[in-house]
Amino acid sequence: MNIGRFTKNLVDTIADAGENFLNLKRLRGTPTQKFVSLCDDLISHKGMASGLALSRQVVKRYRNLSHKEKLWVLKELNRKAGPDMTEIQSAAKHFIQLPNEENLSMLSKKLKTNRRKLFSRMIMASEGAHVVVKLREDLLGFIPQHPELKGMDEDLKSLLKSWFNPGFLVLRKIDWNTEAAILEKIIEYEAVHDIKNWDDLKQRLGNDRRCFAYFHPSLEDEPLIFVEVALTKGISSSIQDIFNAKSKGGKQADTAIFYSINNCQKGLRSIPLGNFLIKIVVMQLAFEMPSIKTYSTLSPVPGFAKWLKQEIQNRSSVFFTAGDLETLKIIDEDGWQDNNKKSRELRKTLINACAKYLVKAKKEGNPMDPVARFHFGNGAQLFRINWMGNSSENGIGESFGLMVNYLYDPRQIESNHEAYVQRGELSLSKSVKAMLAS
Amino acid sequence: MNIGRFTKNLVDTIADAGENFLNLKRLRGTPTQKFVSLCDDLISHKGMASGLALSRQVVKRYRNLSHKEKLWVLKELNRKAGPDMTEIQSAAKHFIQLPNEENLSMLSKKLKTNRRKLFSRMIMASEGAHVVVKLREDLLGFIPQHPELKGMDEDLKSLLKSWFNPGFLVLRKIDWNTEAAILEKIIEYEAVHDIKNWDDLKQRLGNDRRCFAYFHPSLEDEPLIFVEVALTKGISSSIQDIFNAKSKGGKQADTAIFYSINNCQKGLRSIPLGNFLIKIVVMQLAFEMPSIKTYSTLSPVPGFAKWLKQEIQNRSSVFFTAGDLETLKIIDEDGWQDNNKKSRELRKTLINACAKYLVKAKKEGNPMDPVARFHFGNGAQLFRINWMGNSSENGIGESFGLMVNYLYDPRQIESNHEAYVQRGELSLSKSVKAMLAS
Amino acid sequence: MNIGRFTKNLVDTIADAGENFLNLKRLRGTPTQKFVSLCDDLISHKGMASGLALSRQVVKRYRNLSHKEKLWVLKELNRKAGPDMTEIQSAAKHFIQLPNEENLSMLSKKLKTNRRKLFSRMIMASEGAHVVVKLREDLLGFIPQHPELKGMDEDLKSLLKSWFNPGFLVLRKIDWNTEAAILEKIIEYEAVHDIKNWDDLKQRLGNDRRCFAYFHPSLEDEPLIFVEVALTKGISSSIQDIFNAKSKGGKQADTAIFYSINNCQKGLRSIPLGNFLIKIVVMQLAFEMPSIKTYSTLSPVPGFAKWLKQEIQNRSSVFFTAGDLETLKIIDEDGWQDNNKKSRELRKTLINACAKYLVKAKKEGNPMDPVARFHFGNGAQLFRINWMGNSSENGIGESFGLMVNYLYDPRQIESNHEAYVQRGELSLSKSVKAMLAS
Amino acid sequence: MNIGRFTKNLVDTIADAGENFLNLKRLRGTPTQKFVSLCDDLISHKGMASGLALSRQVVKRYRNLSHKEKLWVLKELNRKAGPDMTEIQSAAKHFIQLPNEENLSMLSKKLKTNRRKLFSRMIMASEGAHVVVKLREDLLGFIPQHPELKGMDEDLKSLLKSWFNPGFLVLRKIDWNTEAAILEKIIEYEAVHDIKNWDDLKQRLGNDRRCFAYFHPSLEDEPLIFVEVALTKGISSSIQDIFNAKSKGGKQADTAIFYSINNCQKGLRSIPLGNFLIKIVVMQLAFEMPSIKTYSTLSPVPGFAKWLKQEIQNRSSVFFTAGDLETLKIIDEDGWQDNNKKSRELRKTLINACAKYLVKAKKEGNPMDPVARFHFGNGAQLFRINWMGNSSENGIGESFGLMVNYLYDPRQIESNHEAYVQRGELSLSKSVKAMLAS
Repeated sequence: MNIGRFTKNLVDTIADAGENFLNLKRLRGTPTQKFVSLCDDLISHKGMASGLALSRQVVKRYRNLSHKEKLWVLKELNRKAGPDMTEIQSAAKHFIQLPNEENLSMLSKKLKTNRRKLFSRMIMASEGAHVVVKLREDLLGFIPQHPELKGMDEDLKSLLKSWFNPGFLVLRKIDWNTEAAILEKIIEYEAVHDIKNWDDLKQRLGNDRRCFAYFHPSLEDEPLIFVEVALTKGISSSIQDIFNAKSKGGKQADTAIFYSINNCQKGLRSIPLGNFLIKIVVMQLAFEMPSIKTYSTLSPVPGFAKWLKQEIQNRSSVFFTAGDLETLKIIDEDGWQDNNKKSRELRKTLINACAKYLVKAKKEGNPMDPVARFHFGNGAQLFRINWMGNSSENGIGESFGLMVNYLYDPRQIESNHEAYVQRGELSLSKSVKAMLAS
Repeated sequence: MNIGRFTKNLVDTIADAGENFLNLKRLRGTPTQKFVSLCDDLISHKGMASGLALSRQVVKRYRNLSHKEKLWVLKELNRKAGPDMTEIQSAAKHFIQLPNEENLSMLSKKLKTNRRKLFSRMIMASEGAHVVVKLREDLLGFIPQHPELKGMDEDLKSLLKSWFNPGFLVLRKIDWNTEAAILEKIIEYEAVHDIKNWDDLKQRLGNDRRCFAYFHPSLEDEPLIFVEVALTKGISSSIQDIFNAKSKGGKQADTAIFYSINNCQKGLRSIPLGNFLIKIVVMQLAFEMPSIKTYSTLSPVPGFAKWLKQEIQNRSSVFFTAGDLETLKIIDEDGWQDNNKKSRELRKTLINACAKYLVKAKKEGNPMDPVARFHFGNGAQLFRINWMGNSSENGIGESFGLMVNYLYDPRQIESNHEAYVQRGELSLSKSVKAMLAS
Repeated sequence: MNIGRFTKNLVDTIADAGENFLNLKRLRGTPTQKFVSLCDDLISHKGMASGLALSRQVVKRYRNLSHKEKLWVLKELNRKAGPDMTEIQSAAKHFIQLPNEENLSMLSKKLKTNRRKLFSRMIMASEGAHVVVKLREDLLGFIPQHPELKGMDEDLKSLLKSWFNPGFLVLRKIDWNTEAAILEKIIEYEAVHDIKNWDDLKQRLGNDRRCFAYFHPSLEDEPLIFVEVALTKGISSSIQDIFNAKSKGGKQADTAIFYSINNCQKGLRSIPLGNFLIKIVVMQLAFEMPSIKTYSTLSPVPGFAKWLKQEIQNRSSVFFTAGDLETLKIIDEDGWQDNNKKSRELRKTLINACAKYLVKAKKEGNPMDPVARFHFGNGAQLFRINWMGNSSENGIGESFGLMVNYLYDPRQIESNHEAYVQRGELSLSKSVKAMLAS
Repeated sequence: MNIGRFTKNLVDTIADAGENFLNLKRLRGTPTQKFVSLCDDLISHKGMASGLALSRQVVKRYRNLSHKEKLWVLKELNRKAGPDMTEIQSAAKHFIQLPNEENLSMLSKKLKTNRRKLFSRMIMASEGAHVVVKLREDLLGFIPQHPELKGMDEDLKSLLKSWFNPGFLVLRKIDWNTEAAILEKIIEYEAVHDIKNWDDLKQRLGNDRRCFAYFHPSLEDEPLIFVEVALTKGISSSIQDIFNAKSKGGKQADTAIFYSINNCQKGLRSIPLGNFLIKIVVMQLAFEMPSIKTYSTLSPVPGFAKWLKQEIQNRSSVFFTAGDLETLKIIDEDGWQDNNKKSRELRKTLINACAKYLVKAKKEGNPMDPVARFHFGNGAQLFRINWMGNSSENGIGESFGLMVNYLYDPRQIESNHEAYVQRGELSLSKSVKAMLAS
């Protein structure tokens, strides 16, 4: 570890020395033109040694570009270092005429764009991994307005998938003995339930809590994804309980509640990282604390409110009876949640609607709700829908306060997962099944 | 580090659990048929979770295959998981008709063979990296007799290049405080100058010696490449001096002699790893021991004897005069090296011949000698050719006892390197230049 | 490290098992009586094994005693496990009659009280070191009211001196990569210039700051003493500059200002720990940052205001002329520090008075001011007295805002130190000397 | 860890700097006179700083003294830095007259010899702990011929007991991933069953073996004591089985055999280190491998042959009948062990004799055999005496080939231990009891 870090500095020292040779003074034009010119060199240079100095220059300079400059250079590089359509056409023709391995290999080579070469050399620099991941974040931000950048993103995503292969990730327990520099990032990246300050963080790392994160060896000061767990007595039904510590299990804890999962790096979108995390944490806890028998999430239902409002307005909704719709209109009234009578009226119908949303509302054949999709895909069971699971303003706005427990039963994870992936079957608890049958 | 290792075990535990679901009993046929069938599953399964169990099964079973079985399964997988020529042709046609990014992306996807998918999933298993590197070693062994496997190797090489990007490697100092398990491998992998036993090793890790190795985080018990250094007074001219410790520098050491560089993993052939190693070690030593001013190798000339014998028989040799050839015939006489008179006669002409071999004998435009090619490419200067630099039987047989110092001058490394890569220029010392001019 | 920690838990496990045998149920009386009874067992038991269980019981139970109960048990143990006066008298008589090594050895043995045995066995438990240090803190708190406990403290202090021999201490750099659990304690223990919160702490661990602490291997989560350093351009004359970062040196830093030194463990009072700390940090910085040429403190003058007020009231003061005394009376006027005219009047005389206080006011032959005593004893030079070095309310109250730079000149540390220790000479800068001569 | 080691070097650097001030040139006389003179300085100097330089000088120079010189300086220091008999007598008189805490404290102070001060300051140097432990080894070697050094040894032993308090020791698992520098010492220090070379060592660290050692943080490259364990199926009855691996347990291992325990540091004789080791290793194994149910040693009987020969010659032996004695005479015949008939005759009587030796032969009330004393004292049970447990020449010579299993039953360790310590009771297996009753 230490030697690794030491070497990094040496790599910098070498690159510093190499820079003398780079003859940076010959560069002409604006900072962006200079940057693109350096990228050209990095791509074309056969030399590994000054390549290291070059990659460092590119990495350092990218960091200093403004948002606008970044867009300009990415568009420029996307074009200049993109695929050579004529050469590919030519290779494709050869292959069609004689479809053998040799012509295929030639075609493959032509498809390896200079954009790939550029990213592969950038990542050699000591802060390369940080900057390449940041570059993808920038790229994803630009694509909606500049769809021509999609090709560049495909190249980069394919490299990132390879570099961040789950086989290379390292799991770390995060606790009060973790470096402050990492903990500060946990505070920053927590997006499900805000961590207010260091005291709040310390609560979340207390004896009745657990936190685990995945890291990549080249990005050792950056968590990629992390999960927060509360050890409780019984399955918690509300996030207020978690934070009020009402459900603290102490020595009698028999349940692990996964109440927050966060992807930290926007630049790693669509790179599957979290799939193993929950399962590995389940095994870790099973090993560390044999008294824990039940593993469940306490999860938000982020798309429910939006979907339900649309359904209510949608006259041809297939999900609800007229009576249901009548009842559900209560949600449009201000302050219904503080009104006992209205709440009572709404409760059963709303929970039922949520079950329909989670189980029956689909998008391309899969559950519409992203959180449901993630947990069903991981092999979890939809166990329970909790009234006022999150009574904060945000919780009310997003899902009328409902929260969901997805159950991870170690004996069922694999079969649930396979059933979902291969046949699209969702694992539901008896009570949820009964609710939907009614 | 520890937690990483701990997690590996957990990954095994999960995979163990996952195996129950794999229903391995359904597998039919011979072990090789079963193995291929599991590989099919690993490729086709969408599921990550049982995929982990599967990848572990594949990795474990590959290890247990015999040489012959390995050949059979690799040929089988090469065929079954190879490119789908028809689909690629079809995508190629679409692209030719309409050469846009979308069709290009489709063509790219069709080129991603299932072989790649297979290797990418194998490497997720906890010993995956070890087995994938071993598999490539096997593959390289089979190719000469089974050239149809080349396509598979191209897929694998391209993945290994990405996974073993120099940005991910870690430098470690190897000394007497290194784990025995690593040191045992240093003994095993030393191929230039055999390490006879642990006492011999301890000598090579003494106060006047240094050893550095590159590691990959996923293969932390396997050195990828290592270099051995002797700290001496002046530039050593013979390997006997190094091992007899005559040249031990002690506190007066002013020179670092790189006397052995070893690639450890046959399965990583053609994956550039060593390019940085010498340069980084130069910087490391410069930092640690400012009294060291000179960095040089003491290198073998592996192809010289073979080349010279051919030249002597080759009547149209452009390199030698008739007089030279006459003198050089001494090498055919038994025991010339123990005969003072003959040695004296031969010495100058032979050294001169070696200079020609190193500088003028070319293969595809580059120096024919692989060691010369490596060091010139790294930015070194051909400094001196040493008479009886290696008087062992092996040294006499390979290069009539000659050894070479390649000088690494930190102020010249980069410019030498660039001159070589871009213009094919070789950096030569004054004395070598003078010798060639004569 | 990890294995050490792991073993600790095992030691607990063994002790847990051992507890079954302890037959704790036989204990009678109040918790304090039970505690003393367990201490008796720990002292008398020859057995090491159940001794471990016993020591853990004693350590755990001590923690749970109230302040009042602690006093009771310490007094009780002081008496019961104190020296056996009769036996010592008898051994003393034998020795006087025949003063040989054998009788001396016997006398020595009689002097080894059971109190020592008790502490030596308590420290074997896994949290033993923590509790023994805490016990001494309690003891020191009780002694002023209960001087009979002094004997017990002498026993304990002598053991602590041996256990905390400087040869066993470990220096750690404290920065933003340090564990939060340690950083939290840095916040808690900083007593010279309060750390307000985590943001404030992060400032103090920034690029232009350094922090180093000493640890003992058995108390690895507890800093014993730490020093905070600011890297500046020139010698800072006020603490406001340090915290306003006006004096931030960046790449041009040429000076290291030691602006805060804190002893963390009250229970280690009079155990010399800090003597090496500054000097080792000077060497560390000299190694890490060769551009730093000057090492100085920015120190408070804690006793100055109190002393000066007494001197003013003391008619026979030998330090001041009538004119000085007249001028110095300004300090009794409210708000003098905000009044330019008064400040101007006071300035020179007050600084002069401070020089006299630091150099001439003595207590048992040494400087009266504890901070001066510490730095002179460490080999520092009194370099400069700074007007409004600390303009906070606290600074005004303590020393009318004056702060002092003590200079650590690596070439002079040793000779200053020796001159002080052996001849009581104080090292003074030219300007201070001139001031005192006037 | 790393920072600790780094600091050590800095401590050296400071001491180097300090040496300039030491004015070593003023030293006069022979190397031994110079050495004693430096020790005088180290004792008398009040200064901590140059004390560090001094302590390093003393430590370095002690290492370079010859055996003879060491004796001279130790005798000289023993005298010069020994107790001041006159002052102690005077303090003793005062105490006898007025036996209060104050006079006691004064008497205590007078008893703290300068020898103690010297050792306490030597251990501050970075290699201090190594040299102080070596010095005691030397001292113990000198005492038989020079009993006047006993007083010095008492001072040193008392300090070592305090510094090597079991609470400060760290347990490490020794395996093939341990540093070669440590493993080399394991080879060197193994005295029970020689380790022939590195291959032999690797066997002893294999999957079916375990090795654990205790370390002190200040002596981190020196094992203090270690134990070797074989995991077997059933309780091994012979050391040949252990090394022939006949008894390898593999996955079916149910027993841990402690077949070698070694104290490594002669200089730590009589400092209790090993008492916890076996018990802690039992707990460690119980945790790591729940399938292990039985813990036993396979131990030598070092004093048996010598004792038995004396008993046979001793006409008034209370242990044997005339018939027994007649049978036992077979041991005087050469080659009895290779003679089936004689062996058969001897077997039962000899085992019985051994049981008597272990259980009934006493020295100061405790078992005469040192190994038996150690294990009984640790809470073990004498389980079985094994015929031809060690058929090597050494084994025959020492104990006629007999070896003993001492059983460590976790549920009985504590009670056995207490019964032994408090009432001198030995725990015996049923079969041993029966044998002794017959």
